[in-house]
Amino acid sequence: MEAIRNFNQLTDHLKNLKKRKRIAVVCANDLNTEYAIARALDEGIAEFIMIGDSSILEKYSTLKIYPEFVKIIHIEDPDEAAREAVRIIREGGADILMKGIISTENLLHAILDKEKGLLPQGKVLTHLAVMEIPSYDKFLFFSDAAVIPRPTLQQRIEMIWYAIRTCHSFGIEQPKISLIHCTEKVSAKFPHSLDYVNIVELAEAGEFGDVIIDGPLDVRTSCEQASGDIKGIVSPINGQADVLIFPNIESGNTFYKSVSLFAKASMAGLLQGPVCPVVLPSRSDSGLSKYYSIAMACLTCNGGQI
Amino acid sequence: MEAIRNFNQLTDHLKNLKKRKRIAVVCANDLNTEYAIARALDEGIAEFIMIGDSSILEKYSTLKIYPEFVKIIHIEDPDEAAREAVRIIREGGADILMKGIISTENLLHAILDKEKGLLPQGKVLTHLAVMEIPSYDKFLFFSDAAVIPRPTLQQRIEMIWYAIRTCHSFGIEQPKISLIHCTEKVSAKFPHSLDYVNIVELAEAGEFGDVIIDGPLDVRTSCEQASGDIKGIVSPINGQADVLIFPNIESGNTFYKSVSLFAKASMAGLLQGPVCPVVLPSRSDSGLSKYYSIAMACLTCNGGQI
Repeated sequence: MEAIRNFNQLTDHLKNLKKRKRIAVVCANDLNTEYAIARALDEGIAEFIMIGDSSILEKYSTLKIYPEFVKIIHIEDPDEAAREAVRIIREGGADILMKGIISTENLLHAILDKEKGLLPQGKVLTHLAVMEIPSYDKFLFFSDAAVIPRPTLQQRIEMIWYAIRTCHSFGIEQPKISLIHCTEKVSAKFPHSLDYVNIVELAEAGEFGDVIIDGPLDVRTSCEQASGDIKGIVSPINGQADVLIFPNIESGNTFYKSVSLFAKASMAGLLQGPVCPVVLPSRSDSGLSKYYSIAMACLTCNGGQI
Repeated sequence: MEAIRNFNQLTDHLKNLKKRKRIAVVCANDLNTEYAIARALDEGIAEFIMIGDSSILEKYSTLKIYPEFVKIIHIEDPDEAAREAVRIIREGGADILMKGIISTENLLHAILDKEKGLLPQGKVLTHLAVMEIPSYDKFLFFSDAAVIPRPTLQQRIEMIWYAIRTCHSFGIEQPKISLIHCTEKVSAKFPHSLDYVNIVELAEAGEFGDVIIDGPLDVRTSCEQASGDIKGIVSPINGQADVLIFPNIESGNTFYKSVSLFAKASMAGLLQGPVCPVVLPSRSDSGLSKYYSIAMACLTCNGGQI
């Protein structure tokens, strides 16, 4: 499989599979979510189980768009709707979970339920996103812009594993993973830079399989060869990073918000850790971005059974 | 004075002043620094005192470019050259200090010397940068991408003061200052978000004069009105921030590196705190970026005497 380098290639790849993934959506009452669902139906990559209040029931029953691929379950209470969606996933009735306008906190509550939820015991819950940046010639994955404030070493190792598996789904055979800091110097003042030393050692010992991991490196040195050359930094990443692992949520979020705004990047993102991909968009994500997240979920899901 | 909104307007403004500022440069032996100096000489905004080894002496004596505006002091040892530059500033012989290829550490050593340095006792040393981003319609200032890892409340207040004074030099009468976080929620898990509450209260009490300060806000809500609208966030910043104050050095540095690389932004930056502007470029800064930093220094300096 050739690596998928942008969102058009991702849609094309999924269309060629000729198999719709089943997505359970909780409270899809907003315009951007509606656009994303309609687009996924049009592209033929997904079918939907819509769980929500009477406004959803009314809208989709009247519209009769793709009636064979849209099933509606009428549940008025959003928390109950969330629990029902999670139940459907657990029983193998859907492959992917998606949030509509229910609050993130309420949906997470159902996902994290120890007995009836979707996160296996001991699994790390984190967020992995991918950007198509017009000025970069391939996808750039990054973690974590949304969930873990300051990852521990063990959490970082899990974040890297999620990123590697996702890269493999995208056809990237040897992912180049850059551990981000503001300089290339390791310092006890910055505990994450000490973690990076451990992670690079693990990678060199073959712990992560066929990957290239290096750091600490800054964003520019990770993604532009000339920057490293000027500074005299020799790194196997060579300005060609596929994945950026950020030191903390503030820097990950700054990357996400500033590159999407100022560099006109398109974005997709998924929760990692649960038994199935969870599309958990930010309120300010565009309809297109929500569609791309659905596409990323369709590519990376593997059945959904717990 | 109308606000200066981009680097061309900054050069035009400085040229109209018809007054060259005096810049002491330590070890200007690299191509990008040479370009920046030649450009500043061409534009007529600065004259230079070049302090360095025999290679500088040879180059500038032979070239005889602007001989009336270039003075050369031959000192072979870089540390001694740094001390001499600092001495010249202290005695009023130059308005601005600039680093060539001497290491930042060695130049800082001379600047921070308690008896013979440039940082008055009790002053906070920090970094303030400004970007011209093609997709934003005015300058965007930000702090701190380079010096203070995790600012205290008092350090943040000083960072804001430096930004306000610099905005005034740029003709921005009522600077809009956004205190950056990954969400708009205040939480004890993120101590900087608690500091932000204090700072907003101080601003509302008039402590900072005629400014608008709000936060916590993320980068996108700070710089794009539509993002705040979708999220239902009402902020006096209104997506029109002039200044972003970052929670920590990792997020400030991520902003600087990723926006300059992916959004093709042009950048200038200065150390704040010393008695005169200090141009302390990163090794990977372009010649143009070093010239812009000189221009920013020429606009914001006020004499240089201690």
